[in-house]
Amino acid sequence: MQNFRDRAAAAYDAERFRQQGHQLVDQLADYLASATSGKALPVLPWVTPDESLARFPASFPEEPGGELSPFIARVLGGSNHLHHPRYVGHQVSAPLPLAALCDFVSSLLNNGMAVYEMGPAVSAMEHNLLRWMAGQLGLPESAGGVFTSGGSVGNLTALLAARQAKAGYDAWNGGSPAGPPLTVLVAETAHYSLARATKVMGWGAEGLTPVPVDANFRLRPESLEATLAAATRAGRRPIAVVASAGSTSTGAFDPLEPVADFCERHGLWFHVDGAHGASAALSPRYRHQVKGIERADSVVWDAHKMMMMPALITAVLFRDSTRSYESFAQQASYLFGPGSRPWSDIGLRTLECTKEMMALKLYTCLSLLGTRFFSDYVTATFDLTRRFAERLKASGDFEVPVAPDCNILCFRYTPAGVPASELDTLQARLRQLLIQRGDFYLVQTTLPSGVYLRTTLINPLTSDAELEALLEALRQAPRNVAPGSEIR
Amino acid sequence: MQNFRDRAAAAYDAERFRQQGHQLVDQLADYLASATSGKALPVLPWVTPDESLARFPASFPEEPGGELSPFIARVLGGSNHLHHPRYVGHQVSAPLPLAALCDFVSSLLNNGMAVYEMGPAVSAMEHNLLRWMAGQLGLPESAGGVFTSGGSVGNLTALLAARQAKAGYDAWNGGSPAGPPLTVLVAETAHYSLARATKVMGWGAEGLTPVPVDANFRLRPESLEATLAAATRAGRRPIAVVASAGSTSTGAFDPLEPVADFCERHGLWFHVDGAHGASAALSPRYRHQVKGIERADSVVWDAHKMMMMPALITAVLFRDSTRSYESFAQQASYLFGPGSRPWSDIGLRTLECTKEMMALKLYTCLSLLGTRFFSDYVTATFDLTRRFAERLKASGDFEVPVAPDCNILCFRYTPAGVPASELDTLQARLRQLLIQRGDFYLVQTTLPSGVYLRTTLINPLTSDAELEALLEALRQAPRNVAPGSEIR
Repeated sequence: MQNFRDRAAAAYDAERFRQQGHQLVDQLADYLASATSGKALPVLPWVTPDESLARFPASFPEEPGGELSPFIARVLGGSNHLHHPRYVGHQVSAPLPLAALCDFVSSLLNNGMAVYEMGPAVSAMEHNLLRWMAGQLGLPESAGGVFTSGGSVGNLTALLAARQAKAGYDAWNGGSPAGPPLTVLVAETAHYSLARATKVMGWGAEGLTPVPVDANFRLRPESLEATLAAATRAGRRPIAVVASAGSTSTGAFDPLEPVADFCERHGLWFHVDGAHGASAALSPRYRHQVKGIERADSVVWDAHKMMMMPALITAVLFRDSTRSYESFAQQASYLFGPGSRPWSDIGLRTLECTKEMMALKLYTCLSLLGTRFFSDYVTATFDLTRRFAERLKASGDFEVPVAPDCNILCFRYTPAGVPASELDTLQARLRQLLIQRGDFYLVQTTLPSGVYLRTTLINPLTSDAELEALLEALRQAPRNVAPGSEIR
Repeated sequence: MQNFRDRAAAAYDAERFRQQGHQLVDQLADYLASATSGKALPVLPWVTPDESLARFPASFPEEPGGELSPFIARVLGGSNHLHHPRYVGHQVSAPLPLAALCDFVSSLLNNGMAVYEMGPAVSAMEHNLLRWMAGQLGLPESAGGVFTSGGSVGNLTALLAARQAKAGYDAWNGGSPAGPPLTVLVAETAHYSLARATKVMGWGAEGLTPVPVDANFRLRPESLEATLAAATRAGRRPIAVVASAGSTSTGAFDPLEPVADFCERHGLWFHVDGAHGASAALSPRYRHQVKGIERADSVVWDAHKMMMMPALITAVLFRDSTRSYESFAQQASYLFGPGSRPWSDIGLRTLECTKEMMALKLYTCLSLLGTRFFSDYVTATFDLTRRFAERLKASGDFEVPVAPDCNILCFRYTPAGVPASELDTLQARLRQLLIQRGDFYLVQTTLPSGVYLRTTLINPLTSDAELEALLEALRQAPRNVAPGSEIR
């Protein structure tokens, strides 16, 4: 194995790393310049899934060989360019380059944190950053939480605490006794991760009880009493209400204060899925959208959505930070000694064991860029979206089904001469054409009234001019060409 | 907001990124040189949790200011140095610097992948890398899977598929009917994430049915029949057996073939928690440890343990790759259109939605470093651990409770003159002293016979000489000093 030791020394050699690192920084800086300029690249370099599969086969050489740069060039050339100002698609951030540098540090250090010793600095950062975030939402001093790998795990973590607090029995240790199955009241438009969470917990499809929404796709608080009564009559046991801030399809913010009142009145757990929109609390102009979030028992807040962080970094905040311990407490003597301090041994209160140093990037960016930058970012993207909606409404050939609450906007192109029955097909076709040509990256969604184009104005480099260009591109696109190879 | 647009342009400026990136590469290369040399640093720069908390307060400036380098210097100075050859603690890798570079790319690109369009290149890499991993384990062509953020989420994902396949009812949609509660048979020494997974699913403490282990802490297959019968008599409904490869405390590998036979005989799901040890399949010398893994219905395999990757990258492999779709299928029209291709829209079969480009680092490292490097790594660390165990057994003043199956080894110092009743306290004290001085980072665990020091020889730079030095340090350490401020 002498041979292996030599190769290991080479693979971990600091000078080789330095050389590759400098090369990579130049390659990525050139890439970033190109992507942010919005000129040199298609937003999404479209190839079919099978073509992409052929480029990265399921086999590897036995012996070393090849250079990093050309390999990374192929990856860059096969990826969606979220820094392009014409990326207006899913709610995934165009990450701050500074945050990517922090993730680079995190990956090299690899301090896994489940226990304090495995990451003293980052454990402290996590604890205090969560306290700061809780403070931004107006939660009390007793609040605290954990970072989890993504909003889906985050919502599950919060609902586990709700189950433990409100089921009326020790579900964690005792399992589900005979009796009415548990359920959570949630707007019928809520994110699919909530259905996943309740189905994971074994509550089945009835684990979610849908609450009707109004014309703006916001939960109707006046329907809560009747929904609760009907669920109870149907033999279910409601334990919580989940409000969205905002919903995924349209970005609608449920009214939090009446939901908080309702939960208080009925002794229900109040969870806010603020994965996307809890960041509104950072903006003086839009803070009112999440008024009442300070009364939540738990909140999920993704910094990789509206705080310009790369995925993943999800805050799960609890009004009473001790709640999360109850859900996960168990023995693992090689990890948690009897003297382990609750705040610092983070593995005690998350589904995860080893995790990434998620706090590092956000803590660093807040420290160096200042909080106003994040506050203004929220204000600027929400403002931009409102201006875009006004522009569309004034256009005469576009339709906006619902005024935007945040930076998510659905609309569709309704040119004269296209019958209503063909509008759904037209939107889907136009989207496919634009993304396959690489002009823009946007998505689509189906609302009760049909198929709509859907944009999230999440990249701070996206301007009014880019959006105007989007409308022109939609107007100029050939309407009758089926998407496929002929348009490439 | 013109002011914000200017500041955003500056924050995303490619030249500023280039400059900070080059500085950071030099800073990290210097750090890596120091850490791998094993000379300049303590392994863990010990401070109390409260001291660490004071260094990273819960407040941030409103305006920008400060430089990245000094900030990162404080983080480096407050972290556990996993590249130090005297890091022999938890099962968290000393990441390949090349892999950290790939994570840097991943964080900048931020292709979140839940749908193919959000990461064409990395979706293909993920699909084909998982096929390659399945092939290494000897799973059939039908095998496939997903990457998840960590082994805990991975084990939960596998057990959800087991529930759907074996409960005898549609647990995902229908919830838990009245009737015998589900349970999984598992060695009494298995990882706590399995108990978490079954408790998350609402099965309570009886969701795990412990199977006795032998003197080597391996599941006793001859006990399976009686355990199954007793669980059934007690009113439970066993649906699966989970075997560990290997267990966390001692690294014991359960015998997989008899477990596979048993599952086949009784129609049970066979899951292997190979988070740590599935990598044994890469080594011709140690592949026999996981003989039978090719018969598993599902396997969890962490590349951030024994493949030198930074956290997180967990493969969840299914013998029949369609299994995972069943567990998670649901509607989300803004994500999954009717024409979405199953393999390429990865969000269809994982608990997560947006996730990191986990495949990039491992795909790149296998491509550039070659597969033999990984194979030899496993062989070298397992070999080293065996030599260390022999050295301890021959020493006369150390005790090894169980011969190592992999690269995890428990032992304790038993110097002449220390009564048996004080041995537990001695181990805990010595460990605390060594890690607070920064000489070594190792952990401890409690076995039925008492407290043991526990080492994982996971850093390829750790040599026989370092381990010899560890024994000398334990011998030379003052035995009666209580750990605390006086030793610093």
